[in-house]
Amino acid sequence: MRILLVNPNSTSSMTAKAEAAARRVARPDTEIVPVTIADNPPSIQGFYDVAMSLPGLLGEIEKRGPEVDAVVIACFDDTGIDAARAAVDVPVIGIGEAAFHAASFLCCRFSVVTTLGRSVPGIEANLQRYGLAARCARVRASEVPVLDLERGDPEVVERVADQIASAMMDDGAEAIVLGCAGMTELTACLTQRFGIPVIDGVGSAVTFAEALVAAGYRTSKVGGYARPVR
Amino acid sequence: MRILLVNPNSTSSMTAKAEAAARRVARPDTEIVPVTIADNPPSIQGFYDVAMSLPGLLGEIEKRGPEVDAVVIACFDDTGIDAARAAVDVPVIGIGEAAFHAASFLCCRFSVVTTLGRSVPGIEANLQRYGLAARCARVRASEVPVLDLERGDPEVVERVADQIASAMMDDGAEAIVLGCAGMTELTACLTQRFGIPVIDGVGSAVTFAEALVAAGYRTSKVGGYARPVR
Amino acid sequence: MRILLVNPNSTSSMTAKAEAAARRVARPDTEIVPVTIADNPPSIQGFYDVAMSLPGLLGEIEKRGPEVDAVVIACFDDTGIDAARAAVDVPVIGIGEAAFHAASFLCCRFSVVTTLGRSVPGIEANLQRYGLAARCARVRASEVPVLDLERGDPEVVERVADQIASAMMDDGAEAIVLGCAGMTELTACLTQRFGIPVIDGVGSAVTFAEALVAAGYRTSKVGGYARPVR
Amino acid sequence: MRILLVNPNSTSSMTAKAEAAARRVARPDTEIVPVTIADNPPSIQGFYDVAMSLPGLLGEIEKRGPEVDAVVIACFDDTGIDAARAAVDVPVIGIGEAAFHAASFLCCRFSVVTTLGRSVPGIEANLQRYGLAARCARVRASEVPVLDLERGDPEVVERVADQIASAMMDDGAEAIVLGCAGMTELTACLTQRFGIPVIDGVGSAVTFAEALVAAGYRTSKVGGYARPVR
Amino acid sequence: MRILLVNPNSTSSMTAKAEAAARRVARPDTEIVPVTIADNPPSIQGFYDVAMSLPGLLGEIEKRGPEVDAVVIACFDDTGIDAARAAVDVPVIGIGEAAFHAASFLCCRFSVVTTLGRSVPGIEANLQRYGLAARCARVRASEVPVLDLERGDPEVVERVADQIASAMMDDGAEAIVLGCAGMTELTACLTQRFGIPVIDGVGSAVTFAEALVAAGYRTSKVGGYARPVR
Amino acid sequence: MRILLVNPNSTSSMTAKAEAAARRVARPDTEIVPVTIADNPPSIQGFYDVAMSLPGLLGEIEKRGPEVDAVVIACFDDTGIDAARAAVDVPVIGIGEAAFHAASFLCCRFSVVTTLGRSVPGIEANLQRYGLAARCARVRASEVPVLDLERGDPEVVERVADQIASAMMDDGAEAIVLGCAGMTELTACLTQRFGIPVIDGVGSAVTFAEALVAAGYRTSKVGGYARPVR
Repeated sequence: MRILLVNPNSTSSMTAKAEAAARRVARPDTEIVPVTIADNPPSIQGFYDVAMSLPGLLGEIEKRGPEVDAVVIACFDDTGIDAARAAVDVPVIGIGEAAFHAASFLCCRFSVVTTLGRSVPGIEANLQRYGLAARCARVRASEVPVLDLERGDPEVVERVADQIASAMMDDGAEAIVLGCAGMTELTACLTQRFGIPVIDGVGSAVTFAEALVAAGYRTSKVGGYARPVR
Repeated sequence: MRILLVNPNSTSSMTAKAEAAARRVARPDTEIVPVTIADNPPSIQGFYDVAMSLPGLLGEIEKRGPEVDAVVIACFDDTGIDAARAAVDVPVIGIGEAAFHAASFLCCRFSVVTTLGRSVPGIEANLQRYGLAARCARVRASEVPVLDLERGDPEVVERVADQIASAMMDDGAEAIVLGCAGMTELTACLTQRFGIPVIDGVGSAVTFAEALVAAGYRTSKVGGYARPVR
Repeated sequence: MRILLVNPNSTSSMTAKAEAAARRVARPDTEIVPVTIADNPPSIQGFYDVAMSLPGLLGEIEKRGPEVDAVVIACFDDTGIDAARAAVDVPVIGIGEAAFHAASFLCCRFSVVTTLGRSVPGIEANLQRYGLAARCARVRASEVPVLDLERGDPEVVERVADQIASAMMDDGAEAIVLGCAGMTELTACLTQRFGIPVIDGVGSAVTFAEALVAAGYRTSKVGGYARPVR
Repeated sequence: MRILLVNPNSTSSMTAKAEAAARRVARPDTEIVPVTIADNPPSIQGFYDVAMSLPGLLGEIEKRGPEVDAVVIACFDDTGIDAARAAVDVPVIGIGEAAFHAASFLCCRFSVVTTLGRSVPGIEANLQRYGLAARCARVRASEVPVLDLERGDPEVVERVADQIASAMMDDGAEAIVLGCAGMTELTACLTQRFGIPVIDGVGSAVTFAEALVAAGYRTSKVGGYARPVR
Repeated sequence: MRILLVNPNSTSSMTAKAEAAARRVARPDTEIVPVTIADNPPSIQGFYDVAMSLPGLLGEIEKRGPEVDAVVIACFDDTGIDAARAAVDVPVIGIGEAAFHAASFLCCRFSVVTTLGRSVPGIEANLQRYGLAARCARVRASEVPVLDLERGDPEVVERVADQIASAMMDDGAEAIVLGCAGMTELTACLTQRFGIPVIDGVGSAVTFAEALVAAGYRTSKVGGYARPVR
Repeated sequence: MRILLVNPNSTSSMTAKAEAAARRVARPDTEIVPVTIADNPPSIQGFYDVAMSLPGLLGEIEKRGPEVDAVVIACFDDTGIDAARAAVDVPVIGIGEAAFHAASFLCCRFSVVTTLGRSVPGIEANLQRYGLAARCARVRASEVPVLDLERGDPEVVERVADQIASAMMDDGAEAIVLGCAGMTELTACLTQRFGIPVIDGVGSAVTFAEALVAAGYRTSKVGGYARPVR
């Protein structure tokens, strides 16, 4: 099958990372189609960036939709998820929601560790909307900007690790959701270090997208996700 | 004071109606600055239309923001409300949220009567996000498309009235929120006909915007509404 | 227009302060009609004081109701708000609810700083009832008794400020609601000191009352707020 | 032990009925001390009546509190329950909350059948406050005024019975809570007629009050129920 | 009346303690019928132990059900409560739910102090299911294993007391629920030490069971608690 | 990979059906290991049946756990899901939760159509626990007993179809979740007939289990799902 992996921002190194993460977990016969939205902001940090990136993102999803079996939106705030579902008939899944749902299969209570404090309210609103807020003890900001994650210096890892340690100690978190596509590379080492599930949205979304396609499901075209009138 | 009244769609007759509604309730010394977003869809019906209209809408709000005291977004789904609050420092208020908050000052339980069924999930998501879902008995669709409201034929009014009658009888609604900027003209006649508060978002948002300005408040620039990095 | 500003307690210096706060924000042509309830307790601190003050408060509201366009109840626990709405036809608004609604237009998450710990459960119950509990990070007690606020000594301000600092640091609060009519004078200096919106119930309630009157709304007389049978 | 059974209204025939209901279920050695509040309204129907009856009710509870082991407030809207708990040290229990808690031990989902529609929002607010709203399918009004229940004519019973039948059919109710102290006499015949638990607040509150006393509990005097300052 | 007091684990010294606690509060003419489930695990700590103990527990409840007036399940996680209600017609009450309901009559907000961290998610799930989660500030683990409580050494008491102190200071708890049948003996001394209600599930459940029986209620046999088909 | 597909009841024809449904969607290289629990009840209908089936079910899961990569519990009430997660280290997924999560990726609002009314409260409790209750409009009973589904007569299909039609008309359902493992064969024909997603728990759970394994996740062994002490 073919899965469109859309990075809503314009930083192609992040797309490459997400593609690598997708490839690590995807079925051998799944084709990952990576897309970067060249005219969008270099990172999506908060409500304004989300809003400004939507038409570029949706245009690409609509154009490629007919050629793929599912769409993964590779930004942790699930940029444009509802609009994308209305735009195409195949399943669409965001890496944020995929990670939250995965966590809820693996533990009673998780915490999220994301980048900047300004992104926290949007993530909390998503959790509430999805109904999974009750399973999330806390959304924590590491105050590492998205693009700093690209550098991969050790201090960045330590700031994320500090928040994980606090989440285990203070929140009673039994698993951790990494709250940024750019953190995907840290998953393996943090899992090993802390001994609890550390959940990456890209891996979760790609395998869940495969699951929905294999099970034969498509997006409902009645009600909120009805096809737009043109 | 000056209030920017942005209609996120491109139908200038709707802007004119909203401006008239705003003028009917605004203070004598309030200047209403109406704006239509020429390149946006002619109506906003559901998640996709919302998403596609955001950069046009936000561009206008950012451009005009420094010249006004408050911004009213004249579309019932509160198009881009969070992003707009991040974009400018003055208060920003959507006509949907304004109507919900007004209703919660006037009754114990209200119902919403909107246009198409496809808009219902977005309105319900907003109510949940704002915390006012518990006060709303039901969001009802009249299945009158937004642009049909422009024609003003009597059948349109009757379909809205039918839903109001059902809301009073079946939902125990004590007040009605009209769920579309295009219904603003119906407010007075429906109020008289049904004898309960019929609440119009435009009037509510304009007077609440005046209230926030008069009370001296501005949008928080810490956390979710921090200024975007450029 | 004329707004009845009722202080449910018998401390007339608090009424005077509330009147001054109301005048600072009210329209030039709005007449503020201040009332103190002479036979009520000197301050309203907790459930018992609320209950004992109701008939005196409601008697005054019923007597003056026909002569005014709206009623503001100037006590942060929104003393008797539901009963007052049943008693008169004009809009009635409490300073607590007004502040919560104002905050929800200006930030994603706020904290409340009130007087004594014994008042916290009543405020929390109101937030839950209004649906805005999800927007409130925490209700904090400064342990400053209401009447000590009248003295205006610097230590009082510092105890409130300490709670604001903690709310910003520990609760992620993006705005602060001052949880007592007697704190209204502190609004300006605390806003300047902390750089986030500091919201005063009196100013919020008076301008929202003006808004509801200007928009032409009256309280629903169907269901919970039906006129009492006599 | 001695239980104060306060009827917050002035209709002594209702007090007599409640006393009889209390006696039917109380321990042989429990003394029921019935009180009618002579200066209060003849029935409590909605928010306004509740508010006007509070000082009379609380005065009596304070006066008699030191002589009894527990207090039962015999009005289904749990008139003044929080204030009463602050006023005395012994356990205080309302017949509404007692019935809701009893129902939650006996079924998964119940409906309430009360008197007038105007009382519904107050009961719903209580259910939400107590946390038991999720267990209640619906609060139904029989539109039988409280004082008509006193006449005991067969039509009154049939209107209550009609609502019970609808609750079982349409709400999936597994038990019924009778939403008025004046319905207490109907409990036995309705239980037999419908074959599901029909729950009476007076019986529930009196036996729960006995339970709390026997278990040795008293009301917390820290926080919301701290003793009022005088 | 006769109350079956079932300890779902196989530690008969815990049954004896629970029986003593029951006897301290029960009516003189109530017969407590204690049962230990010999083949069950020695303590119930978490989801797995709960599940493994159910058929043994239910078998005993079904066998003895026809001879008793009510059943009390003496384990704080309310082991098998829904299944037990389906199995017999008499009221069934768990010590966890009894304690939560008792607390909600006595204070605005309580905290739970239980044994091991692994039991916390199950207790939280129960609180959410019963609707009382909003009244519980926090479920705290003392990390004292159930069977260590049997030894009664002073260190055990201090670890529970430490959590109570923290609950009062940090959670704003106005009462404490002891979250294990094995803590029942500590109730009196902790109540005296902390001066707030300390609530024991065994005492609460036995007296509430007496209350339900005295009031004449039986479990609904319609819907979720319908008799199992055999 | 190897997936243990456990049918908690003793009806091996249901296991065969579930295995066939699993095989239709599983990866070519996934081995489905079907298990029937011979000593359990022939169907699981309500709380009592769930409870009685747990040790048999868990014994099998523990025995086979070390040889498989994931476990699917093929009963719509997610029999023993929490205990099973504590019992083994590999991911465990129930067909009820899998269907709810799948539905929440495909539509805004779904309804469930299950077998008997007695199963409804357990399903509703699961939805609330998982946080997905807000996404579910209604849980509907077709009143078709589980074992009648085995016969496959046309009347059975029509009763399920009637409920789907009502869900679309009255609940605003945009997708349907089939609430019984025995309905899995109806999925394709009902999807075609109604034109909206009809979601089968077996297919959803098997593909989600494959997803979790491919993504490298295992169940958290900290907190609620810590390994049982033996």
